[in-house]
Amino acid sequence: MNLIQKIQKKIDQKTKPLGALGKLEEIALKISLIQNSLNPELKRPVHLVFAGDHGLADEGVSLYPKEVTAQMVFNFLNGGAAINVFCRQHNIDLKVVDAGVDYDFENNPEIIHRKIAHGTRNILKAPAMTIEQCHQAMKTGKELVQNEYLKGTNIISFGEMGIGNTSSASLLLHKYANIPIEDCVGAGTGLDNEQINKKIAVLKKAAEKYHPVLAEEILTYFGGFEIAMMTGAILEAKENAMTIIVDGFIATSALLAAYKIKPEVLDNCIFSHQSNEKAHKLMLEYLGADALLNLNLRLGEGTGAVLAYPIIESAILFLNEMASFDDAGVSKSK
Amino acid sequence: MNLIQKIQKKIDQKTKPLGALGKLEEIALKISLIQNSLNPELKRPVHLVFAGDHGLADEGVSLYPKEVTAQMVFNFLNGGAAINVFCRQHNIDLKVVDAGVDYDFENNPEIIHRKIAHGTRNILKAPAMTIEQCHQAMKTGKELVQNEYLKGTNIISFGEMGIGNTSSASLLLHKYANIPIEDCVGAGTGLDNEQINKKIAVLKKAAEKYHPVLAEEILTYFGGFEIAMMTGAILEAKENAMTIIVDGFIATSALLAAYKIKPEVLDNCIFSHQSNEKAHKLMLEYLGADALLNLNLRLGEGTGAVLAYPIIESAILFLNEMASFDDAGVSKSK
Repeated sequence: MNLIQKIQKKIDQKTKPLGALGKLEEIALKISLIQNSLNPELKRPVHLVFAGDHGLADEGVSLYPKEVTAQMVFNFLNGGAAINVFCRQHNIDLKVVDAGVDYDFENNPEIIHRKIAHGTRNILKAPAMTIEQCHQAMKTGKELVQNEYLKGTNIISFGEMGIGNTSSASLLLHKYANIPIEDCVGAGTGLDNEQINKKIAVLKKAAEKYHPVLAEEILTYFGGFEIAMMTGAILEAKENAMTIIVDGFIATSALLAAYKIKPEVLDNCIFSHQSNEKAHKLMLEYLGADALLNLNLRLGEGTGAVLAYPIIESAILFLNEMASFDDAGVSKSK
Repeated sequence: MNLIQKIQKKIDQKTKPLGALGKLEEIALKISLIQNSLNPELKRPVHLVFAGDHGLADEGVSLYPKEVTAQMVFNFLNGGAAINVFCRQHNIDLKVVDAGVDYDFENNPEIIHRKIAHGTRNILKAPAMTIEQCHQAMKTGKELVQNEYLKGTNIISFGEMGIGNTSSASLLLHKYANIPIEDCVGAGTGLDNEQINKKIAVLKKAAEKYHPVLAEEILTYFGGFEIAMMTGAILEAKENAMTIIVDGFIATSALLAAYKIKPEVLDNCIFSHQSNEKAHKLMLEYLGADALLNLNLRLGEGTGAVLAYPIIESAILFLNEMASFDDAGVSKSK
């Protein structure tokens, strides 16, 4: 028997009808394969939130002013944001990275200072990043994940904060998956129809301006510092055989870039939540992915990933702790 | 402002886009109303599993032999079943009730001994219960919930174990909702198409035999001891302003009976999981309900309810712990 067969046998011998734990069984199988073990464990879960500003926010693509990115970073540091609440609930170590916020946080020791620049450039005027900035951001994401790996982490999730970053995610989806821009754009933080049409017009202009081909070039032209750091982080998590919990629209756009660079990253991904941002559905379909939860969230910060954590933990616990038919002396099906 | 408006205002002032926490916001509102409080809390969560046998199992409607009900009760007592694993994970107090298993558990102190009889009667031969048995079962369910209420519990969930009990649930759905029996029957623990057709034929015969009208009569003729205890338990939980986490197909059939007796019970219910048992979708639609999770579970024991617990807890935590825009100094949307 190969490992897949051994794991499946272990699952099927648990005291439950065959397949009755549905998606939990799929998760148990997936993480067992990632860890190459019949007795997988979740160790030292970490959630990294990357914050960065977007030049394109100047075009009025968001309901919120750009200052909110920095304000929300302070909210994270003070423990008052949704992601703080959910990480505390599940004992997940939360770390906040300044990937490129348009604000100087001075030497605040609670932030991981990795600012690439004070926000990306306005894509209508110039590519969002230089290729050097994009590489630097990816490298930083890799280093941060490597640090956690060395401390024993084997499951990790990523979130983001950046006013305007649904625009980057929409553009990345458009470019990577060749989906019409209209279908890639949604309400973001709560735009009405007229505002969405305006956003579509802005993104169309942006999309028509540059036609890069390589995965990293597309990321450079249309991404953001927080997105590129997540892309690097995902690639490094794959290298270290970590389980990656994938959050919503923006986090998945970072994965899209990682997938284009190294398709095997998908083997390590658990898709946590299908965002209420409508294009996320298309993004997941493009990746052949099916999300665990559908709670109509559209908040970002990685909240979907952290809310899914206990379900993933349940999958590992049933695999390790449930009795088998033989152990429990329970009759099997006829 | 009335309480609904006050709660909604509290939710809307949290540092997130309006409505961005989706179903968590609905849960927070619902539990605040149940508890008549702007600062709801979840206290001493308890999960009661009711076990009972079904005479109809003699007709071969399940893949598993009847003995499995008692065997699984021992598995619960030994901590080896899925429900044990998930209750331990979330610190939920698990209690196992012998509602009417066809086995003598002697004086095992870990079981709550409330056996009505050694299994219900075979519905093809006689009504499942007598009206006295059904009343006794409902009364018992009420007493057990009352006990937990007096110890401080304000959130409760119910699960079941009983070989053959999807048949009862299908019959209850058919009778209460006037849905054709073919649409009320699914694969249960894993029947193939031929076996499902056989099950439909048996249930048709059973359904045509009796035509009770009153809610409690329908429960008496087609229910089970574990189902009737759950119905009583749900009604008592409503009386005590508890939040009720509703599990899958069989637990919802018990709720259906409770709903027919007292429609207001729905105000206290959170629907945790849409079962892979296909008729559960119809049952939820009939109740106008939308389940939180859809993990393709079809296990019973109340596993869906317990797996949803951390999501419900997240809803309460965000309401109580997240900062408001004013607290955090974050700018609101334009």
